[in-house]
Amino acid sequence: MALIVHKYGGTSLGTPEKIKNIAKKLKGLKEKGNQLVVIVSAMGHTTDELIDLMNKVSANPDNREYDMLISTGEQVSASLLAMALIDLGCSAVSLTGGQAGVVTEDIYKKARIKHIHLDRLKNELKAGKVVVITGFQGIDSKGDIITIGRGGSDTSAVAVAAALQADVCDIYTDVDGVYTTDPRIVSDARKIKYISYEEMLELASLGAQVLHPRSIECASIYNMVIHLRSSTKDITGTYIMSPQQIAKEVGKMEKQEAVRGIALDENIAKVGVLKIADKPGIAAKLFGALAAEKINVDMIVQSVHSAGSLADMAFTVERTELRKAVQVAEKVGKELKSEAVISDSDVCKVSLVGIGMVSQPGTAAKMFEVLSQEKINIQMIATSEIKISCVIKKEQGKKAVQILHKAFGLEKVS
Amino acid sequence: MALIVHKYGGTSLGTPEKIKNIAKKLKGLKEKGNQLVVIVSAMGHTTDELIDLMNKVSANPDNREYDMLISTGEQVSASLLAMALIDLGCSAVSLTGGQAGVVTEDIYKKARIKHIHLDRLKNELKAGKVVVITGFQGIDSKGDIITIGRGGSDTSAVAVAAALQADVCDIYTDVDGVYTTDPRIVSDARKIKYISYEEMLELASLGAQVLHPRSIECASIYNMVIHLRSSTKDITGTYIMSPQQIAKEVGKMEKQEAVRGIALDENIAKVGVLKIADKPGIAAKLFGALAAEKINVDMIVQSVHSAGSLADMAFTVERTELRKAVQVAEKVGKELKSEAVISDSDVCKVSLVGIGMVSQPGTAAKMFEVLSQEKINIQMIATSEIKISCVIKKEQGKKAVQILHKAFGLEKVS
Repeated sequence: MALIVHKYGGTSLGTPEKIKNIAKKLKGLKEKGNQLVVIVSAMGHTTDELIDLMNKVSANPDNREYDMLISTGEQVSASLLAMALIDLGCSAVSLTGGQAGVVTEDIYKKARIKHIHLDRLKNELKAGKVVVITGFQGIDSKGDIITIGRGGSDTSAVAVAAALQADVCDIYTDVDGVYTTDPRIVSDARKIKYISYEEMLELASLGAQVLHPRSIECASIYNMVIHLRSSTKDITGTYIMSPQQIAKEVGKMEKQEAVRGIALDENIAKVGVLKIADKPGIAAKLFGALAAEKINVDMIVQSVHSAGSLADMAFTVERTELRKAVQVAEKVGKELKSEAVISDSDVCKVSLVGIGMVSQPGTAAKMFEVLSQEKINIQMIATSEIKISCVIKKEQGKKAVQILHKAFGLEKVS
Repeated sequence: MALIVHKYGGTSLGTPEKIKNIAKKLKGLKEKGNQLVVIVSAMGHTTDELIDLMNKVSANPDNREYDMLISTGEQVSASLLAMALIDLGCSAVSLTGGQAGVVTEDIYKKARIKHIHLDRLKNELKAGKVVVITGFQGIDSKGDIITIGRGGSDTSAVAVAAALQADVCDIYTDVDGVYTTDPRIVSDARKIKYISYEEMLELASLGAQVLHPRSIECASIYNMVIHLRSSTKDITGTYIMSPQQIAKEVGKMEKQEAVRGIALDENIAKVGVLKIADKPGIAAKLFGALAAEKINVDMIVQSVHSAGSLADMAFTVERTELRKAVQVAEKVGKELKSEAVISDSDVCKVSLVGIGMVSQPGTAAKMFEVLSQEKINIQMIATSEIKISCVIKKEQGKKAVQILHKAFGLEKVS
């Protein structure tokens, strides 16, 4: 007997038939004596349909009302799954985020979870019920419904699993694990059996959209093992865990491949603020203004012109935020007497990720070499201890991933 | 400046365009300095779609989960209307039943409202906001979402209006008032300007489905004037109020027409438990068993056979409950040694309603006479002080309404 936490994504819950199949599977697990908590996303395209409806009603939807509206999607799937379970003779109850005790910050649309009051959840489990919880949401101190950012159901699942001290959090999705890169781009991409939180975090942030980055962050804080797996095929997926846990599983302490995965993010845009006086405080001014508008900046590159006193500042943002970012950049650019503000959405970001990189020098040099051989021009570079990212022309993105996957021998990883 | 309570039904909120139009109208009222509370139903066919989805997932949906599921419909329309208002620069906030302080009994699917905690509602009004409340729902003592029965948004609106001591509760719908009978059946049916709670209650219970009966009951308790009116045409509808208020408005204390309206209910079925021993307690036994199964029984007729010791018991129920009702009747019938249980869903109920009836004898006799002239056979009769109902063959229902409307001169009512 164990306490099991499952999370099902929207595609997995896309039709009444799929919901009934999940209910059957859960019933089987319940009958083996397990305690079950299930976190659900909204069915299929429900969220998109609600957003569509919203855009027809309002040009600039209010954040509080957005949360009120969007949260209904998960409530529908949670109640349907609970019904399907009860219909099979399996005692169950659905709980909204608020009913499940998920308390968030007082920020609409992208709050963080503050804590989870487990009283009701534990009582329902004690009463022998499968507890189905709406993912992606909680309540704030006023009792208002708060969502925690798109894809946040993963985070809800990990947070609930951590609060309940479950052994593992099973996240069921429409892919069967994490691959060395997108298999639609590279046909011999391999499934990775164990990956560390940090690597997964980078891959997730970089466009491998199988898991919400915050869920991985949360899992790493609580050392919660995530098993990312297929909702249709009953096979092992990818375990996301600490390097220590991986070493224990794999049975070797060293010789990790330098590069573990390659990610392509086509959803970015580049902004450049050109020729500004290079004096202390210019970066703070620009990025402070962007932060004040809640624009998430990803890569930042500052280059100093040979003249010495003038600098270019370039950064990337999500494509949807480009217009707002340019407005801010132009305003600040004017104050800083910038010569021009340029923007380009015809770009993408290719990234190599791997904990081993830090101990194997030359990975970056090899990446640049491989790209240059294919005449792919690098516009921006950013590095961290476990990743190297290059911004290149959008149309060259897929090609870059393919040649890098081959150059680093990722098709041979087992 | 006044405190205005509006309620909009699902058809009135059926499309984003309609929602935006309502928002415009509300903004105009707000700018005149009024305080506004708006109760909304689910958009168009949302509830039916959710029920459809539910039936695909579960053969026998759990009541708690039903409420959890169905309540999302109102949450969607409330947040959309609030967004549309904010978009027009009109400060607004949507509240779920629970957030609005609507506390119900601990009964799923058909709870009654116990009380309304006005704190948040009043605070939002004080902050200058239009408050949009999800109709049809509240929370129970456990914090679970509870719906108050289909069509319950009318009741929500009246309860909120009463709690806030508003002067009038405007219920906007897709008809422009209450008519002497269904205009689709009788082309010269007239709109009634003032109607008493009791008359309206009878008409609503009898199939004139413009207003939820419980909302009228609630309005009568608190003497809340309901103005039932069109959401598309800006014309006066029907005022539902006490006879005292009507007398004041109309300026005459007597000479009310005996019959004010005629209703046709085609959604009934008849059950007969034949030849049971006529001794004390048989009715209690039968109808106690039906009540235990939560089957609403409408008309009841007990007839004693000439033999003296045997009785027939006939009653009507909503058509959807016929199967369950027959099961109960057969079980009890067996215990009571009934000769047979019969059922018939090929029936309808025609009713005359009017407060004046009680003081004008002969109305019933005239009704029976008119029907017999057209060779319409009466199967069951039930009378109260302000109504007379006859169960007849279903196919004769519309014809019966037409000839009665003419016979009682209702086309001449102004």
